[in-house]
Amino acid sequence: MRGIEVVVSLPMPETETAVKGALAEEGFGVLSEIDVASVLASKIGVQRTPLKILGACNPHIAHRALEQDPSVSLLLPCNVVIESLGDSSTRVVAVDPLELMAGDEFKDLATEAREHIQNALSKLPTIT
Amino acid sequence: MRGIEVVVSLPMPETETAVKGALAEEGFGVLSEIDVASVLASKIGVQRTPLKILGACNPHIAHRALEQDPSVSLLLPCNVVIESLGDSSTRVVAVDPLELMAGDEFKDLATEAREHIQNALSKLPTIT
Repeated sequence: MRGIEVVVSLPMPETETAVKGALAEEGFGVLSEIDVASVLASKIGVQRTPLKILGACNPHIAHRALEQDPSVSLLLPCNVVIESLGDSSTRVVAVDPLELMAGDEFKDLATEAREHIQNALSKLPTIT
Repeated sequence: MRGIEVVVSLPMPETETAVKGALAEEGFGVLSEIDVASVLASKIGVQRTPLKILGACNPHIAHRALEQDPSVSLLLPCNVVIESLGDSSTRVVAVDPLELMAGDEFKDLATEAREHIQNALSKLPTIT
C-alpha cells in the first residue's frame, strides 16, 4: 500500500512531536501509539530500525463515517508511521484515506480526511 | 469492509477479557485500545453505543510482513472491534487480513494471520 510520504529534516523524537502538533492543528488527535521496534525487540528479540505507528483520528470525520457505516471502525484510526532514517532525518508516511476507504460511499469523507492529513504533513520541515 | 464477525453471549467487559485471552492463545498481543464511544463523548459530545477498537498484533507475523514490505506498517495492527449489543451480548468483528492486505505478495502471511484470528474468535462463547 502506498501512503502520503514526506522525509523530515529532524531526528525521530522531534519529528514525532512535530507530527502530533501538525495533526492537532488539523483536528486529529493521536489515540494510539505503537513502538514497533520496541515490541519486536521485547517479544521476539528482533532488532530493527526505530519505527512507531501513531493512530490519528479526527473525531468529527470519524463520527460521520461511523454513522454512515459502522464497519468503518475496522479501518480506524488513520495510521501515521514514523521511521528513523538516521540522526537527522525521519520518514513520515500516513495512510491515504482514499486508498484505504475505497468505495464511493466514503469518497467525500475520505477526501476530506486526506486533505487534512496532507495539510498536516505539509507543515513539517521536509527535505527537498 | 467486511470482517470476521461473531456475536458473543457475554456483556461487553467480559467479552473484551475473553477476546484478549483468545487472541493471546493465538500469539496475538493487544498493542492499542481505543474507546471510541468515550473519545467521541469527550471530544465532540456525541453519545453512541459502547464501541472499542483493539489493535492486535502477532509479532512473528508482523516481523515477517515488515521484512517483506515495510509499508505494511500502514495496515498494522489488526483491528478487533467490540460493540455492545445490550446487557448480555456483544458483537466482535475482526479485520480480515486477506481483505486488508490484498495482493499476492502477502497472501501466505495474510492467510496465516486470518487462521489465527478465526481460531481466536471460534473459542468465544457465541450465540448460535
